Amino acid sequence: MHVVVNAAMSADGKLSSRRREQIAISGEADFDRVDRLRADSDAVVVGVGTVLADDPHLTVKDETLREKRRESDRPANPARVVVDSSGRTPTDAAILDDAATTYVCLSEAASVERRAALADSAELVTAGEERVDLLRAFATLQEQGLEQVMVEGGGELIFSLFDAGLVDELRVFIGSKIIGGRDAPTLADGEGFVTEFPSLDLESVDRLDDGVVLTWRVADR
Amino acid sequence: MHVVVNAAMSADGKLSSRRREQIAISGEADFDRVDRLRADSDAVVVGVGTVLADDPHLTVKDETLREKRRESDRPANPARVVVDSSGRTPTDAAILDDAATTYVCLSEAASVERRAALADSAELVTAGEERVDLLRAFATLQEQGLEQVMVEGGGELIFSLFDAGLVDELRVFIGSKIIGGRDAPTLADGEGFVTEFPSLDLESVDRLDDGVVLTWRVADR
Repeated sequence: MHVVVNAAMSADGKLSSRRREQIAISGEADFDRVDRLRADSDAVVVGVGTVLADDPHLTVKDETLREKRRESDRPANPARVVVDSSGRTPTDAAILDDAATTYVCLSEAASVERRAALADSAELVTAGEERVDLLRAFATLQEQGLEQVMVEGGGELIFSLFDAGLVDELRVFIGSKIIGGRDAPTLADGEGFVTEFPSLDLESVDRLDDGVVLTWRVADR
Repeated sequence: MHVVVNAAMSADGKLSSRRREQIAISGEADFDRVDRLRADSDAVVVGVGTVLADDPHLTVKDETLREKRRESDRPANPARVVVDSSGRTPTDAAILDDAATTYVCLSEAASVERRAALADSAELVTAGEERVDLLRAFATLQEQGLEQVMVEGGGELIFSLFDAGLVDELRVFIGSKIIGGRDAPTLADGEGFVTEFPSLDLESVDRLDDGVVLTWRVADR
């Protein structure tokens, strides 16, 4: 399995404002880059916070890219995965429509009612007691044939993935705005590291739109 | 007056860990870049949080650069400025030694005792009732001949300066670590912007050490 985290952040490292409203950080060229990355992936993963805040669809937007996937005997869109410990994904979430297979990764803390509600439109993966055990959940996804995995946020999930040692690559578009805010979501939230910090190797630097894309490889531990 | 904010942040936009301990984000080449920027400045500004967390000296480290300043009839080191609403700068702070002139910008909320303690080793500038009025304080600094001003953090001060419209340029070294943490200090903390966001123009992108330096101009409002 190869896990690429992709995100767009402001010049000061924020994914959105403290109100968690989506802010246009990147532009058309970056949207196209993200669409190509989705089209190259077997699965696109988000945390439930992102589903609740943005209700993303996570499908490939470019019809040509979808057609190319079909021609190589793949589904038009990559699978979608929500990491959702207690099963808070709304049943009318865009991510649960029939445009692609959707996996909801739950912990054992998710109620039977929520499981029953979600089982109609998603494949359920249970791992972990109170919170999703990401190593086990991702192992299950890999058994389903999901090898190229793209993660689109949010900052809580991204931190947890780095903490679990699951990230292979980080691609960050850095845009030309200052969002600010000690409570605004950042690229990696969670508890934070305090003694040992995941180390990266800068692979490429590319100007795009009014910002820059940094591609980092996660260094071996 | 020309105000340059300079900072080093992790790949996820943090200035330090949630414990506020200093973390080596950049390397030797970036230290040299920062030293040259200090040597080109009339004043180096930090918030009191940075003084309390890091006790920085903020002097020019390279003797050749100090000598060049002396040759052009400038003091060996730029002036140092602490933005410190209630006068919490310790009297034994490195920033108050006699290596350079130090200004402490206070609000009217700073007690007479703190003022008396700080007046021995610093020039006091008072502006604002409960918090330092940055526009007035910086106007006073400009009257003292401080034209090229460099700001070295932290995130609370940097946000306030953007909020006051005082920043002309932002230079950020982005390093190869993930720090993470929803409570870790970021490049711009404070309340955060929610409707209008300061807009930047990307002037240059330079790989340095194991990261990259982005130079942004603040766009006209």
